[in-house]
Amino acid sequence: MKTIKCGIIGASGYSGELLVKLLARHPGVDLVLAASRKMAGRKVADALPTVRGYTGDLNFVAPEMEVLLSPDNSVEVFFLALPHGVSAEFAEPLLQAGKRVIDLSADFRLFSPELYEAYYGQPHPRPDLLPATPYVLPEISSPVWKEANLIACPGCYPTSILLPLLPLLKESVLSGEDLIINSLSGISGAGKKLAENFLFCERSESIKAYGIPRHRHLSEIEEQLSLAVNREIVVQFSPHLAPMRRGIATTIVSPAGESTLEALYEAWEKAYAGKPMVSVLGPAETPDTAHVVGTNRIEMAATHDPRTNRFVITSAEDNLMKGAGGQAVQIFNLWYDFPEETGLL
Amino acid sequence: MKTIKCGIIGASGYSGELLVKLLARHPGVDLVLAASRKMAGRKVADALPTVRGYTGDLNFVAPEMEVLLSPDNSVEVFFLALPHGVSAEFAEPLLQAGKRVIDLSADFRLFSPELYEAYYGQPHPRPDLLPATPYVLPEISSPVWKEANLIACPGCYPTSILLPLLPLLKESVLSGEDLIINSLSGISGAGKKLAENFLFCERSESIKAYGIPRHRHLSEIEEQLSLAVNREIVVQFSPHLAPMRRGIATTIVSPAGESTLEALYEAWEKAYAGKPMVSVLGPAETPDTAHVVGTNRIEMAATHDPRTNRFVITSAEDNLMKGAGGQAVQIFNLWYDFPEETGLL
Amino acid sequence: MKTIKCGIIGASGYSGELLVKLLARHPGVDLVLAASRKMAGRKVADALPTVRGYTGDLNFVAPEMEVLLSPDNSVEVFFLALPHGVSAEFAEPLLQAGKRVIDLSADFRLFSPELYEAYYGQPHPRPDLLPATPYVLPEISSPVWKEANLIACPGCYPTSILLPLLPLLKESVLSGEDLIINSLSGISGAGKKLAENFLFCERSESIKAYGIPRHRHLSEIEEQLSLAVNREIVVQFSPHLAPMRRGIATTIVSPAGESTLEALYEAWEKAYAGKPMVSVLGPAETPDTAHVVGTNRIEMAATHDPRTNRFVITSAEDNLMKGAGGQAVQIFNLWYDFPEETGLL
Amino acid sequence: MKTIKCGIIGASGYSGELLVKLLARHPGVDLVLAASRKMAGRKVADALPTVRGYTGDLNFVAPEMEVLLSPDNSVEVFFLALPHGVSAEFAEPLLQAGKRVIDLSADFRLFSPELYEAYYGQPHPRPDLLPATPYVLPEISSPVWKEANLIACPGCYPTSILLPLLPLLKESVLSGEDLIINSLSGISGAGKKLAENFLFCERSESIKAYGIPRHRHLSEIEEQLSLAVNREIVVQFSPHLAPMRRGIATTIVSPAGESTLEALYEAWEKAYAGKPMVSVLGPAETPDTAHVVGTNRIEMAATHDPRTNRFVITSAEDNLMKGAGGQAVQIFNLWYDFPEETGLL
Repeated sequence: MKTIKCGIIGASGYSGELLVKLLARHPGVDLVLAASRKMAGRKVADALPTVRGYTGDLNFVAPEMEVLLSPDNSVEVFFLALPHGVSAEFAEPLLQAGKRVIDLSADFRLFSPELYEAYYGQPHPRPDLLPATPYVLPEISSPVWKEANLIACPGCYPTSILLPLLPLLKESVLSGEDLIINSLSGISGAGKKLAENFLFCERSESIKAYGIPRHRHLSEIEEQLSLAVNREIVVQFSPHLAPMRRGIATTIVSPAGESTLEALYEAWEKAYAGKPMVSVLGPAETPDTAHVVGTNRIEMAATHDPRTNRFVITSAEDNLMKGAGGQAVQIFNLWYDFPEETGLL
Repeated sequence: MKTIKCGIIGASGYSGELLVKLLARHPGVDLVLAASRKMAGRKVADALPTVRGYTGDLNFVAPEMEVLLSPDNSVEVFFLALPHGVSAEFAEPLLQAGKRVIDLSADFRLFSPELYEAYYGQPHPRPDLLPATPYVLPEISSPVWKEANLIACPGCYPTSILLPLLPLLKESVLSGEDLIINSLSGISGAGKKLAENFLFCERSESIKAYGIPRHRHLSEIEEQLSLAVNREIVVQFSPHLAPMRRGIATTIVSPAGESTLEALYEAWEKAYAGKPMVSVLGPAETPDTAHVVGTNRIEMAATHDPRTNRFVITSAEDNLMKGAGGQAVQIFNLWYDFPEETGLL
Repeated sequence: MKTIKCGIIGASGYSGELLVKLLARHPGVDLVLAASRKMAGRKVADALPTVRGYTGDLNFVAPEMEVLLSPDNSVEVFFLALPHGVSAEFAEPLLQAGKRVIDLSADFRLFSPELYEAYYGQPHPRPDLLPATPYVLPEISSPVWKEANLIACPGCYPTSILLPLLPLLKESVLSGEDLIINSLSGISGAGKKLAENFLFCERSESIKAYGIPRHRHLSEIEEQLSLAVNREIVVQFSPHLAPMRRGIATTIVSPAGESTLEALYEAWEKAYAGKPMVSVLGPAETPDTAHVVGTNRIEMAATHDPRTNRFVITSAEDNLMKGAGGQAVQIFNLWYDFPEETGLL
Repeated sequence: MKTIKCGIIGASGYSGELLVKLLARHPGVDLVLAASRKMAGRKVADALPTVRGYTGDLNFVAPEMEVLLSPDNSVEVFFLALPHGVSAEFAEPLLQAGKRVIDLSADFRLFSPELYEAYYGQPHPRPDLLPATPYVLPEISSPVWKEANLIACPGCYPTSILLPLLPLLKESVLSGEDLIINSLSGISGAGKKLAENFLFCERSESIKAYGIPRHRHLSEIEEQLSLAVNREIVVQFSPHLAPMRRGIATTIVSPAGESTLEALYEAWEKAYAGKPMVSVLGPAETPDTAHVVGTNRIEMAATHDPRTNRFVITSAEDNLMKGAGGQAVQIFNLWYDFPEETGLL
């Protein structure tokens, strides 16, 4: 198998850490560079003990452009696991230098710089890059994205919401009106932030809603849903923190209108038949995050409530895999014509 | 302080266990009887180690009527922590013998025996008792309930839903249309069932929806909401299991219509001012189960989403306290004119 | 019941928070003051949501001596839940002002200032106070401690170790040689420190030894054991962090020598008969932290291994209750001749 | 890469489930058979949702010999994930039929049938097979094991204890006297037993010792230690259940005698240099189960306590990987000359 030289910038968060592990064991990847301001100079396996055994003698380097672009590395693809705002600053010079970039931050997920500013509280640093940067849900996005050199990797909540919903909107099973979405996320979704709120004793045995009614990921969810059907879709999105490390479960309620559960499942079947990362469960089942954590799969199911004529749609994924690093690797696989699940089993 | 002789029937589940503890330490209660078929003959403190130190030499007796009604005990109030179907069989002879009964099961929560049969899959064993049995949410129910001798204690999910919603429906802040309710419960809500699904390794680090779209508690939620406004209310209710022992968080989405957030908070203020067990939080806060577990309080908050003109209402309670045994003790306190929080702090 | 005016200084940690709750609901306490530099000016119930419903309108004040000693408060007993080093600074002026002080920090637990310096890395700020400050394990310590005005409350690990061991050493069941002690603590033992190591995602589903071979509590354990038998006792102490919020389980291995298990249990019986906070379990049982968390009880059991002629002694307690705030209240109760378990059930 | 046709018998427990996943994704394995009495006829991916996406259309078959040995399967290697007592019954006919067998149960771990009977409470069903069945710790065992056709895979606790200790005994760093061993295991170690003790609400937020002083694994630990140094070694072993799904942490205290920490680390270095599954950490570190769960690595570290002249040795592993299924695959890899970590990263 050919190997592609890859580098990671920013690996102090949980999705960066997992990405190091995924790339280090990927048979088609030669992980030659890991850059982190915080951990520069340290051996990767010491700084991130969970990847010990995977990264050999690789050391973190400083994320300076001359280091990143050094001919010693000859990195071909950079994965950016950086905070929003910071990613955009790195992407441009890397692209200029002819590199391919997969960005896991929110910086390139929105097409509208106004929306970015409204939700992220700062002007977009490189609005010129937005129009040409595809937002890639591998099972859904048109393959023209493969021609881009900068790819936006979707957010964790949006992935758990868009994968069930997009085929249903596109096939007019749902109108997109009155979508009520509740998501429950493991704590790693908040990153490694040193805040009292994320201490073990605060979050263990605790559950709570947060970020309502206007969590940042709402911008990305609504923009993607709207683009899919060419009209404005507005949803109600209520995220919650659940006392577990990884996993997102999402429950979506939608009016059924004239649609049937059969039609719903047909739309999913049409979109996802043969897609190894999407498991469509029967209407009597509900996805369980424990069945997908550690995998790049998303599970989804739906039921119809005849009392209310609504559909209740449920999904579950690993927020760090299908919701972040795993999906990035899946994108990489498709870009380089590796089998889709390479390095992800 | 006067003391009332109390007995518990059925204490092998989690709410029964907690009820033993609450009654044993209650300064106005003399816990003279604990009956359990499964544990008859065993010392309570051995069979239920979490109540060790509270129950002295009390032994479980068999739940035989001659034992329960023995003059040796002279129990005045029985708390029934029994499965549905079984409770009803015990209630009648106890009432006949002049006892007061607080039932924690579902047997007397519904006024409609048809609804009971539809949701619990069996004819109600004593439909004649239903009309006269009040369903008591102490903060809400009209005090005429105090004249009854048999009280139905509300379910865990319903309490977390009805306490926020009832004042809002009664004050016409909400119409009752299009209520979308998601609840997240700790595993103790499922009782001590020996099923693979409730093993530590299955539930830890796992979250999932279940019982959709027609969980049993839906019958009670809808009947109470409908009775409050004298018209049929139909809701969408999606419960979830969360990896924690105790606690329920509920998130309710409702159209706001012409109502304002101020009106919503006024309705709550009107209903709950001076009620020590209800904490109304500001719109920038969201209740956290960790703040109420171990207490008999429920917390609630609401926010308005101007984008969708909907309210998002959140609540949190301890499913075994305010959602079960604690509320039963609160009912007892009011029945006997003890201060409402006696034995519950 | 008479009520004593009490104040708490330092309540931003977990034991301070619990102490607020315990004192607020204690029928013999009038909690008139809560002081915290970090939270001064905030309503206690807002700053510490877990005590909401207990503290009414009490506000945190600044821990300035003129505030603490203000005649408006007339505090009679101060509970200090402060970091070591800080406690000693507060204790002296409070004593001077005629107040009683129960200190939960390590500052007054050692009699030897040299030992303090060796283990805490700084000279003791008030070595003069050490000789007259009793270290009080209520079940063990000679009641002469009641005459002191400053009391040192034992540490969490030491309580779980000393209560099982002290009677066995005193009765010569154990020689004190070759004691190997392993303790497993919930994360609240580390306090509310904002360190990556205490984030939910780092500690959940994780267990590890730490602080070996010379954890700070070793000084206190060895000094107390040595004082009890008037010769130097040296032990091996290995603490571990376990993925739970509260609770300490301790497992002690000791040579049995000529002693029998019967003699061991007799020594315990002699020490603890009638002591409500100590539960001695049979040799076929092992204490479980889940059975004592939320209570002020410690459970202990022992077995003899005929293959090795050793005893294996196990104990379990709630680190924040019997290991900290609960024991402080127990001391208070004895000081003021309240029944020992007042406010602790 | 060549592929070997493999089959699994017994997959209803946690180590069997993980083994299905490991073998299904192993590039050198063609998993052609999964047998389970309980799940016969069901699709593997439905019966074990955590392996969904790995096992394609494979169905569980009944564990009947004619099915297992059917020429349709042509299984070359059988992995037995069966209860002790049952494994031995399957091993013999499979061996007779010329198959290779890796047994994960306790049935072939002991050389002494008397010891087996003493610890497992029943006569060994096939004592004749014991002498020729190697107990294989891949990093330690002499490679002559590769000539056997039946391999005993070590237990979870023993692996975490023997890997640190065996080199130290063999190199005379430790005498083997006075070894005090404490182990802390995740709940999956108890399997999927439907017992109240393993319910989420019983084990969450709980820690306790169990099985002292004579847990079944003690037989295997002592036999292996004794064989290594050709004299009887007797140890004190105290296992504990910790509130996590996977992982074992072990803490061993041993007299240091004349040995130095340098000598200890040299013995480890000699044994484990170049072994990818063993990570030796420095004396200032302690292994953390969170760093090894999901991997086949074991971490170990040691420190010397000059106060007591003892070593404190710590290790951590994933009980289902290095302690069970992962080690079985590692053995398979070595048997078939695959790189040791194939399918284990």
